[in-house]
Amino acid sequence: METKEVYVESLITKTPQEGRDLAIKLARKSIGVIQTDPEVRKKLRPQYANDPAMLIASAQVIALEFQTIARANDYWSKTSVK
Amino acid sequence: METKEVYVESLITKTPQEGRDLAIKLARKSIGVIQTDPEVRKKLRPQYANDPAMLIASAQVIALEFQTIARANDYWSKTSVK
Amino acid sequence: METKEVYVESLITKTPQEGRDLAIKLARKSIGVIQTDPEVRKKLRPQYANDPAMLIASAQVIALEFQTIARANDYWSKTSVK
Amino acid sequence: METKEVYVESLITKTPQEGRDLAIKLARKSIGVIQTDPEVRKKLRPQYANDPAMLIASAQVIALEFQTIARANDYWSKTSVK
Amino acid sequence: METKEVYVESLITKTPQEGRDLAIKLARKSIGVIQTDPEVRKKLRPQYANDPAMLIASAQVIALEFQTIARANDYWSKTSVK
Amino acid sequence: METKEVYVESLITKTPQEGRDLAIKLARKSIGVIQTDPEVRKKLRPQYANDPAMLIASAQVIALEFQTIARANDYWSKTSVK
Repeated sequence: METKEVYVESLITKTPQEGRDLAIKLARKSIGVIQTDPEVRKKLRPQYANDPAMLIASAQVIALEFQTIARANDYWSKTSVK
Repeated sequence: METKEVYVESLITKTPQEGRDLAIKLARKSIGVIQTDPEVRKKLRPQYANDPAMLIASAQVIALEFQTIARANDYWSKTSVK
Repeated sequence: METKEVYVESLITKTPQEGRDLAIKLARKSIGVIQTDPEVRKKLRPQYANDPAMLIASAQVIALEFQTIARANDYWSKTSVK
Repeated sequence: METKEVYVESLITKTPQEGRDLAIKLARKSIGVIQTDPEVRKKLRPQYANDPAMLIASAQVIALEFQTIARANDYWSKTSVK
Repeated sequence: METKEVYVESLITKTPQEGRDLAIKLARKSIGVIQTDPEVRKKLRPQYANDPAMLIASAQVIALEFQTIARANDYWSKTSVK
Repeated sequence: METKEVYVESLITKTPQEGRDLAIKLARKSIGVIQTDPEVRKKLRPQYANDPAMLIASAQVIALEFQTIARANDYWSKTSVK
């Protein structure tokens, strides 16, 4: 297997906000699995953090991961109406 | 965790329109998590707001976030037929 | 919230065709929320309407919005076989 | 509404193959709604039909539309095992 | 309709591996429907097979088609734990 | 069929982490099916591993494959709350 590190033990989070945080973490870890050198990742980071097209593409990955997490949590149970 | 700010407390909204607004908010916050400097974000904004390809890519992120929100709200219950 | 205008009151439509029209409307409104100046949007329109890559990307947004709408309408109830 | 033409009356098809055909039709019609001039579309066609990146992007739109159609048809009922 | 050829008779496959193969086939057929000339397709193939961005985009289409197929097969019934 | 190799026997994994690993494997295998020459793939790898846009696109493929796998595993059963 590609990684020994366990970076996700469960898709269940207490709140939607923690679900967002987990989505961001999963997106980042995917990049870390492909580009395993932390020095290279550090060098690439300002490139995409300053490029609006890459920021939007990153937001898309987060949205996809969040779809999975939200569903795993039954959308945090649909009870509260703001 | 990446963010202390809680920008989403619930996926439940009163109306589809509020669901759209939340989708847009989630998309924006994703970008804010990656590019944390508000000054840089302000500088990037006209870049993508004037680039049709980036506008379309942004609309795609909103569509994905809205899929999640619409489902969380059971599509606002399927009752009204316009 | 980002927008006062209510451009979607319900995801329910009478027919699949109206569902397509709503998908297109939602996609367009997303762009309108990011680029709020109608004059700029008018200027950008010929750019993407004549660029096949952007047309395809637009079609992708419509497909995503339509997924949500079709589901909200229970796929217009699965009854008719053409 | 954007279009008077009714190009989709139902998402129900008799076979998976007809579902693919409908997916392709929906993808094409989305482009037709944005670029309404048939002469321009005819001119753009060889551009994307000869560009592998655009062909792949088109295949992605078809895949998304097919997801919706396949679900509407309950995946053509899961019965036959090939 | 666009194609007379029937390239998909059923979404049901015996195994997940056959589901992957079908996903790849569907992705390829989409390209074949848009670029109907086999000589042109042959010429384009080395272009995308040697371009990492296009390879990744192709993998995305396969992932989307596989989502549909996996669901049609009820994920090959969830029974075996490896 | 395109491949004799069986690289996925089941979508079921013991843990979410193994599900991530499988998602990555599926994404990689898709690329291997299109670009079958391992020497070429080896040559392309540094290209996308050092290009932030391609890394993000790869993360998107992983996210899509993971959606399927997570669902196949019923989101690893929704029980544990971290």
